[in-house]
Amino acid sequence: MSDLQQYTIETAKRARVASRELVRANGQQKNAWLKRSAELLRSGSADLIAANQLDIDNAPEFGLSVAAVDRLRLNKARLDAIAEALLDVVRLPDPVGEIIDSNVRPNGILVTRVRVPLGVVFFIYESRPNVTVDAAALCVKSGNAVILRGGKEAFHSNTALHKILATSLSEIGLPADAVQLVNTTDRDAVGYFLKLNQLIDVTIPRGGKSLIERVAAEATMPVMKHFDGICHVYVDRVSNLSMAEKILINSKCQRPGVCNAAECLLVHQAVAATFLPRIGPELALHGVELRCCSRSLPHLSHGTLATDEDFRTEYLDLKMSVKVVDSLDDAIRHINEYGSHHTDAIVTSDLAASERFCREVDSAATHVNCSTRFNDGGEYGLGAEIGISTDKFHARGPCGLRELTSYKWVVHGQGQVRS
Amino acid sequence: MSDLQQYTIETAKRARVASRELVRANGQQKNAWLKRSAELLRSGSADLIAANQLDIDNAPEFGLSVAAVDRLRLNKARLDAIAEALLDVVRLPDPVGEIIDSNVRPNGILVTRVRVPLGVVFFIYESRPNVTVDAAALCVKSGNAVILRGGKEAFHSNTALHKILATSLSEIGLPADAVQLVNTTDRDAVGYFLKLNQLIDVTIPRGGKSLIERVAAEATMPVMKHFDGICHVYVDRVSNLSMAEKILINSKCQRPGVCNAAECLLVHQAVAATFLPRIGPELALHGVELRCCSRSLPHLSHGTLATDEDFRTEYLDLKMSVKVVDSLDDAIRHINEYGSHHTDAIVTSDLAASERFCREVDSAATHVNCSTRFNDGGEYGLGAEIGISTDKFHARGPCGLRELTSYKWVVHGQGQVRS
Repeated sequence: MSDLQQYTIETAKRARVASRELVRANGQQKNAWLKRSAELLRSGSADLIAANQLDIDNAPEFGLSVAAVDRLRLNKARLDAIAEALLDVVRLPDPVGEIIDSNVRPNGILVTRVRVPLGVVFFIYESRPNVTVDAAALCVKSGNAVILRGGKEAFHSNTALHKILATSLSEIGLPADAVQLVNTTDRDAVGYFLKLNQLIDVTIPRGGKSLIERVAAEATMPVMKHFDGICHVYVDRVSNLSMAEKILINSKCQRPGVCNAAECLLVHQAVAATFLPRIGPELALHGVELRCCSRSLPHLSHGTLATDEDFRTEYLDLKMSVKVVDSLDDAIRHINEYGSHHTDAIVTSDLAASERFCREVDSAATHVNCSTRFNDGGEYGLGAEIGISTDKFHARGPCGLRELTSYKWVVHGQGQVRS
Repeated sequence: MSDLQQYTIETAKRARVASRELVRANGQQKNAWLKRSAELLRSGSADLIAANQLDIDNAPEFGLSVAAVDRLRLNKARLDAIAEALLDVVRLPDPVGEIIDSNVRPNGILVTRVRVPLGVVFFIYESRPNVTVDAAALCVKSGNAVILRGGKEAFHSNTALHKILATSLSEIGLPADAVQLVNTTDRDAVGYFLKLNQLIDVTIPRGGKSLIERVAAEATMPVMKHFDGICHVYVDRVSNLSMAEKILINSKCQRPGVCNAAECLLVHQAVAATFLPRIGPELALHGVELRCCSRSLPHLSHGTLATDEDFRTEYLDLKMSVKVVDSLDDAIRHINEYGSHHTDAIVTSDLAASERFCREVDSAATHVNCSTRFNDGGEYGLGAEIGISTDKFHARGPCGLRELTSYKWVVHGQGQVRS
């Protein structure tokens, strides 16, 4: 066995031991750790900024863009924001120990389901160093030990941030191994960790599609995946067209580079001739390029003919595909076939259409008469989020503290036996 | 691509299409199908028994034991029981469409989580033909299409039972492909299905450990696993020893061949000298062989010295390992290290001990002062169960209709956009 493989096994074993200790921690202790970490982030800002500078200096070597270097940079304001985010997690209720439901059986046994941590989380992420702190906060608050594997571009920043998180764990009397940072940027380490399904309960990759695909293919434990968002706005036969316009522009243009931004506009044939000529110039004004089906193109001020591939593309940019559909059924079929089961919105005044859309569109989120951009842990009221799951198993959509937990059955009797 | 692989893809695609239609079915339609299937099981009993006879005739060829042949056999009474089980599922509430929780945000959007089917279930099982009907009933009632892969020993029985289930689907106006039976016993077919994570949402293997290990290793989609039950009964320092005796005998002897039967007795050192001499002859009377640690052996009427391996063994038989522990901590450590995270019971009069046991033993079920044998969908009040999950992800412990579902976020607004 190589030293690297040995290192991954020992790291995971330490995480498992820490997770067993963490089960005994109450909410006050976990909150004390969050608060102390926030203090240390502020008081240690000079050291953190110095460590970060090493990453900034190395950035050209990794070929980072100007935008990527900016995302990487830590300064006093950003460290303050990271500390504030920790205090936001303090304010969230502790999910561990909640009695989800209970049931007294005829023989008198009390059957309860109690929320418990998942155990050990392996979290793989890219670039921005604030994610190191956010992920650790959510994992530990939900009672999990976490193994953090950050990007090589942020290695020095992550190492300095991790040192603070581990120091404050020890200060508070919680196991320092509850938060570990993988101390190498060797890609093989990830492969070794992904084999350790006896020690790691879930892997969460956050980053580009190729990372997630690699993890999904190699992992021997469950993976919480966050694949692409090919999100639709469908404007129905009977709908408020000024509302449709506002929702479409917001869904497409408010922040085009994120997963819950809309990539495709579907318009019912009955309103195509009214809605498209109205929305075309508005989209042009926002700089949105259009890839249009043959029925929509004549009604639009600009645009080119779309290929089938356009309707399967997550642009993450000021580009949008447009299609006229014959009916609600046609819209639902298109979304289920071409979409990515992330977030799809309908604009309609027809109650039955909204009900059918929400029931039959097989996506993590269906929105009626509001922007796709609301699919977000903060907007939905979860507090913070560790990602947005495109899976149906375990957790779907935004994942916060609750989604980092499992449950156990706790049964109380007074000597009952089975007959 | 081989014909076999082509067949698996087409089968899974048909299941996907059926699952989209099934989403539109209401509880009444699904119940009508269950009732009609129960009728047809009774009216078609002669044909079913004839098909079953072919399997019985082939049994020697597969080297089935007398007990296995008995489990395989269908007769009028057993078909009646299978039909009754369908009517039990009729009485369970429809899980689909339930609003799990909701949250009105400050901007007025209403955020709800709505229970939805998982989609397509691939169910792999061995021997008993009643499982064909039970699994189909649970999957369809929870809105899922199911692909059934039964054992070769029951091929003719399963084919005849499946014909009834598909016929009644068509009669009621539901898609016949909601329940498909794999029409070949070729083992390669399973491998091909396990690659189809774009078409199949979850695989549930039910059978021996080697089957489950194979499926877990090959599957590209989530798997609901039911591994072994190395269950413990721990008799604490302060406990009612006659209650402990009753619970231990029931946990070990009432049905020793099942996963929730106890395999190991842990006794606190303070009560070892009182409890073990009392329980030894009682276990001997029930024919239980004992494998004992060096501290327990002198107190027992019979038994041999245990090896480390004994404490890691699921006997599924009238055998039990016995160990004296120094403390509650020692008991918890032993269970977490040697157990299989299935079901563990404590007998105690000490409230704090019961609380620590339930919190720190990392098992799907922790039972206080009652038998391990209660870990069962029926006993817990779930109605029927499709298995008992030893995973923490998605579902843990007994899995009924609810555990065959996911949820989606349904958000209603009145034109809100994100600022």
